[in-house]
Amino acid sequence: MKNNIPPATVQRLPLYLQCLEQVDINSVGISSKKIAEIAKVNDAQVRRDLSYLGTLGTRGVGYDILTLRKQLELELGLVDGLSAIIIGIGNLGSALAEYGGFKEKGFKIVGLFDSDSNKLNKQIGNLAVKPLSEIKDTCEKYNVAIGIIATPEKVAEEIADKLIDCGIKSILNFAPVMLKNKPGIQIRSVDLSQELQILSYYLDRQPLKVAK
Amino acid sequence: MKNNIPPATVQRLPLYLQCLEQVDINSVGISSKKIAEIAKVNDAQVRRDLSYLGTLGTRGVGYDILTLRKQLELELGLVDGLSAIIIGIGNLGSALAEYGGFKEKGFKIVGLFDSDSNKLNKQIGNLAVKPLSEIKDTCEKYNVAIGIIATPEKVAEEIADKLIDCGIKSILNFAPVMLKNKPGIQIRSVDLSQELQILSYYLDRQPLKVAK
Repeated sequence: MKNNIPPATVQRLPLYLQCLEQVDINSVGISSKKIAEIAKVNDAQVRRDLSYLGTLGTRGVGYDILTLRKQLELELGLVDGLSAIIIGIGNLGSALAEYGGFKEKGFKIVGLFDSDSNKLNKQIGNLAVKPLSEIKDTCEKYNVAIGIIATPEKVAEEIADKLIDCGIKSILNFAPVMLKNKPGIQIRSVDLSQELQILSYYLDRQPLKVAK
Repeated sequence: MKNNIPPATVQRLPLYLQCLEQVDINSVGISSKKIAEIAKVNDAQVRRDLSYLGTLGTRGVGYDILTLRKQLELELGLVDGLSAIIIGIGNLGSALAEYGGFKEKGFKIVGLFDSDSNKLNKQIGNLAVKPLSEIKDTCEKYNVAIGIIATPEKVAEEIADKLIDCGIKSILNFAPVMLKNKPGIQIRSVDLSQELQILSYYLDRQPLKVAK
């Protein structure tokens, strides 16, 4: 089953996991229709997506909630806990450093870095901001899997190269710029304005139709 | 053509716009292959998506860059400029208030609100943080289209209801909770940990295959 899930389905798996975390785990099961309603996708899509996990709901009962949660966590590699570092500790980097959602999902932030000497040693939670020159040591010490870039746009590419030099294979970029593809490296970019643009599309139009 | 674009395509339109903003506008045209490469989607998808705009590339030349940009902006309703307010001015709300990408895309932040009296009158850019009781006035004064929620999880639903009471029809939610569907209201949620989970899926797997 591994490596066989289409990218569009992978993108929805965290959403399904989030839905399951919000429902009453004492209910017997959850229907694809209910998941679809919470996740705001259509329910044929939910059934198709979950079938990639080898999970089939039972007619009249739906999916067993705890089993499905465990399968999703396993598939997403959230079981062992992955280490991440954040580069660029402005407002956004600080917000990410304090964001409770990461820890809940099994991600551990193990380092905060900034090139601005005024920010050095600033304490956020139990971490102090360190200079970029210490990235490599932290990566080796904690076997860091993911580098999160929250720097200004103009240095993001350079920081990405630095992270790759330090052995990082996955980058999450919050700077409003598209980073170049690099062989063997997974890069995902989050553009905070894209969601606003999507909302803007639907303004002045009919309500979004969701297939039943 | 309006209202006819599938939701999955709408989601990619801002991405294409971002790509076009990064290429040299003095080039004659841009191929779907080049857009696909920058946007990291496959090029048949790009051609299909752009065909919804009524835009067909010219063989050997591709799409005219400026024309395509204008069409995307028009389709996304970015031409007139929309007003938005932010509720919850912690680190994330402050980061959003300062985020250059919104203004670039034609969104204007016209109000910042927080229930914490210690944050009142704190100045970010040219705006001062106001109490929640002033949301309604601001909405009326500026014809606010979009409410951005950056509050803690536990008050997000209540804030959403308040925004709807004030006449807002589109909500962008950054609190790590799925808000309930409300009739006639567009709600989009951004879960900052979802992108990390997607990266996690690809760690320890083969590099993501992109169809050529």
